[in-house]
This record gives sequence, C-alpha cells and structure tokens, in this order.
Amino acid sequence: MSQLYKRVAFIGLGLIASSMIHAIRRHGLAAEITGTARSAETRAIAVEDKLCDIVTETAAEAVAGADLVVLCVPIGAMGAVAEEIGPHLAPGATVTDVGSVKRAVIEAVTPHLPAHVHFVPGHPIAGTEHSGPRSGFAELFENRYLLLVPDAGTDRAAVARLRAFWEGMGALVEEMDADHHDLVLVVTSHAPHLIAYTMVGVADDLGRVTDSEVIKYSAAGFRDFTRIAASDPTMWRDVFLNNKEATLEILGRFTEELFALQRAIRTGDGAMLHDYFTRTRAIRRGIVEAGQDTAAPDFGRAAVKGPAE
Amino acid sequence: MSQLYKRVAFIGLGLIASSMIHAIRRHGLAAEITGTARSAETRAIAVEDKLCDIVTETAAEAVAGADLVVLCVPIGAMGAVAEEIGPHLAPGATVTDVGSVKRAVIEAVTPHLPAHVHFVPGHPIAGTEHSGPRSGFAELFENRYLLLVPDAGTDRAAVARLRAFWEGMGALVEEMDADHHDLVLVVTSHAPHLIAYTMVGVADDLGRVTDSEVIKYSAAGFRDFTRIAASDPTMWRDVFLNNKEATLEILGRFTEELFALQRAIRTGDGAMLHDYFTRTRAIRRGIVEAGQDTAAPDFGRAAVKGPAE
Repeated sequence: MSQLYKRVAFIGLGLIASSMIHAIRRHGLAAEITGTARSAETRAIAVEDKLCDIVTETAAEAVAGADLVVLCVPIGAMGAVAEEIGPHLAPGATVTDVGSVKRAVIEAVTPHLPAHVHFVPGHPIAGTEHSGPRSGFAELFENRYLLLVPDAGTDRAAVARLRAFWEGMGALVEEMDADHHDLVLVVTSHAPHLIAYTMVGVADDLGRVTDSEVIKYSAAGFRDFTRIAASDPTMWRDVFLNNKEATLEILGRFTEELFALQRAIRTGDGAMLHDYFTRTRAIRRGIVEAGQDTAAPDFGRAAVKGPAE
Repeated sequence: MSQLYKRVAFIGLGLIASSMIHAIRRHGLAAEITGTARSAETRAIAVEDKLCDIVTETAAEAVAGADLVVLCVPIGAMGAVAEEIGPHLAPGATVTDVGSVKRAVIEAVTPHLPAHVHFVPGHPIAGTEHSGPRSGFAELFENRYLLLVPDAGTDRAAVARLRAFWEGMGALVEEMDADHHDLVLVVTSHAPHLIAYTMVGVADDLGRVTDSEVIKYSAAGFRDFTRIAASDPTMWRDVFLNNKEATLEILGRFTEELFALQRAIRTGDGAMLHDYFTRTRAIRRGIVEAGQDTAAPDFGRAAVKGPAE
C-alpha cells in the first residue's frame, strides 16, 4: 500500500487512535505519525510504547506540518481542540474526526478551521468495550464500515484520499448526510448503549437481588448488556448530550414498543409475543450474512484476536 | 467419572438436551440415553446423528425404566408432558427440568407426578442464540451455574445425585428458592431479552432507517442485542407468560430508570450521565472476574468452540 499522507497527527490517543496507528504502520499508509493526549499518563505510555514517532505536549505542536489531522477526542472536546489547532494547520491539510455524532462535531469544529484546510468528518463503526492507548489493535477496522460525511462544498480529491486511507486500513467506506448519520447511529449504537446502561443500573440498585447474584447468573443474557455498558463514560455522556433530539425520538419509540410488549405479557397475548420474537430473528440473520457478526454461538468465553487483558 | 444413572430420558431434544447428551457421553455419566421430541423431523435427526441410544415416538415410551427424566420442553408444554409421563415413571426415578422459570413449572408438573418419584427442578444458566438438536455441544455447561430449586420435602439423596450429575458436566451447582430464582432470572435474563427484542423491533419498523443500514452499521452495539434477540421465540413467549409478575415488576423499574436518564439527556445533566455510566463498569468487572465472560475485546468475529454454522 502506498503512503497516502506524509505526516498524520492524532489528537487523542485512545482505542480508535491507537488502532488506526497500528493499522497505518502495518499497511504503510503514512511516513510519520505524531500524537498528543490531554493526560500526561497517556502521553507517557505513547512514548514508552513508541506508539507515535513524535509525542507532543500540545495539540498545536502535534498538527504542525501534518497533511492529515485526526481528532480522536470526546465529542465535547472537539470545539476546543479545533480552536487550539486552527492557526497551526498547514495549508491544504485534511482534518477529520472519529466522533460518533456528526452534526454537533461539524458545528463545533468548522468555525475554527481556516479556509485553506479540508474538513472531512468521519466515523468508524467499530470498537470494543475497552479504552486507552493500549486497547488498540490493527484489525479493528477490517470489514467494518467507515462513514464520511463531507458537505457539498468539500474538495473531492481530499475526500477520495481519506477514503483510500481508510480502505487501506481494511474499512468499507461510505458517504452519508450528517443528520441521517446521527439518526441511524442512535438506532444501531446510541440507544442500545443507553438501554444497556439502564438495565445494568437497575440490576445494580435492586435491593432484592444482590450484585453477586447478578454477576454469577449473567450468562443468560445480561452479560451482553454489561459488555456494552462498560464503554467509556465520558465518550458516551458526550454522545447523548450532543445527539439529544434523535436519541430522545428513538427512546420514545422504544418505550412505546416496550409498553406494547408489556401489555401483551400482562394480557397473556402469546401470539403477539411469538410473532414479535420471530420477526427479530430475520435482522439477526441479515447481520450475520453481512459479515458484521459471526454465527458461531456466543457463550462468553470466546478466544478473540486483539490484546489480552 | 462414575455412572450416576442407568438410563437418562430426555423429553425434548433442543440446545440444552443435546448439549447435556454430549456432556454425559464425554464424561461417562450414564449408561444409556433415551429421548423423544414432538417434531418428527427432530426425532429423525436424533436417529441419524445417533444422539440418543433409543429415540421413541412418545414421552411415555422414553421414560420407561429411566432413573432420571429431564424435561427439556418449552415451559408451556411442561404440564402436558408431566401428565403424559406420570403413569409411566419408574419408582424411585428422579424427574428434573431445565426451564428458565421455576415456580410455574413446579405448579404445572407436580400435580401429575406419582408419590414414588423425586422432582428436583433445575435451571442451567447457559445457552447460545441457537436452537435444535444439532446446536448442542459438550462444553456448554462448563463453569456455568446450575440452579436446583427442590422444596423442603425433597429427598436429599436424590438432590445430591443430581448435583453430582451436573457437576460431572462441569457446572457450578447451587440451590435456590423458586420464587427468588424467578426474580433473579428476570434481572439477568428475561428483562434483557425482552429489551433486546424491543430494540430490534424498533429498528425493524423505523421507516426512516432501512434494515440494510441497521444491519451494516450494527457493529456499534446493536449487534449484541440482535444476538440475544435471535433466541427461540416459543421458549421466550412461554418464559414471559409464565413469569409475568416478576417480569412486569422489573420492566417497571427499568422504565423508571430509563426515564431518569432520558430526563438527564433532555436537561443536559452530564454529571448524572457520567456517574451512571461509571457505576455500570464495576458490574462488568465483576462478571469478568467471576469467569462468566472474557475480558478480551468483543468485536463480533470471535472464533469460538462449539459447532460452526
């Protein structure tokens, strides 16, 4: 794979950034990688692990001379980072991000970027429940979707280059409108996470069932909820605060639907329940056929690639 | 491992029964295995795969001469099966079941059993999203909990023998009161399943987001919901219809909690969200430490033991 960028700068060095760095190195997609993180501890780990060629104290230093800048900070921090790096961005540089919400990021970042850079917001639909500079691995994006949400005026050559960069890491790249992205992601990610957090919270403070019982008997379904409810709290707080309307809309639909099922249970409407549960199997089949999950039975002791913890 | 039973009869030959049979054979826990299933197709597969030593047309024939009878049918069918086999049970035989709800099974089965048999209801906290006579594998119960819910009058020797039998298959056996079991399982299994079914249903009939989008972008969390929402519809219909009160109680708590989080999102209470999401990580750690899940990152392409599909 040919080098697509001379110097890639990462602002934020968590799961996504560190996975991108491993993938860039493996596939030779960039000549040099610089990076910074707000926490001194994270920067120290990045130096110790030689995660980046250059680790800087500030975002401004990190982006100097970079032809690609990747914002990998929580959504709530995007605006401040953009304001800090704006004056230091090289002419013709591309700026992208990996935030799970796109409209809010565009509104926070765009005002701070000079006219001589290309802003191409992005979102890799990939991740694990782990966080931090040591949680990344090069395979994270393989066969996973990467959504780019450029606006109509964006330089197509910059978009094409960023697309090739992500494809080089194994991702399936598609373009989408920012608002539609934010709705789709509520359904496939944001609402499921909030619901998982909620169920885990209920279990945690239910006096009549002990935490130890919940933990011991989790293999029957609850376990899958706790996995996604273990994701980074700051990232998720920002997702919900920055995708409010779509989140509340889908949660409203969810509650409506849940009440219908509750009513079927209360009234003993077995036919309704059976039909409903049968319908959901089709979507599952679709996900397996689309290669976005394996059909192998999951019973929580899977040996997977990626770092052992 | 020494043979604990001469002849074990399985009524119903799905995931749990077929997994038990593979485990019994591997560990030499019984001399002979008989089995039957309502569907002729399932019985044909059982014959073809030599799953049982003897496959019978009826439950009555299957239990003849068995010193252990395992009821592996949906909860709604337990009563009728008990009525059919009652007159054919051998004196001193132990009857158990693997239903996910215990009080309703006890009420449905007990009236049909003769005084000369021992009824020791059980529930293995293990499973996958697959069903049928070919979905089982011998490792399913290893390091998983098996709950026995005998009543005060149950013969302790019969309980001890059944405990040794499950321990021989690798399970961690505990005893619990039936009503408490039914509440704990709503939290760790029934409610999570209903919620997963609901979210998948919302995604499925949301006009503005296509099924294909939901499927392609499922790796961000939704995927874990579809996995548990792919479980057997008949089994789950019966679980909810037969554990109504506890299910509705916990769903009530869930909705209350969800509304509190919705309100925090609406009012922009980031501190509340962050605290909440942080608290849920502790339970996740507990589950991993208890060996009920792996800490390896889950990104849906795990290579696991068990049958390839």
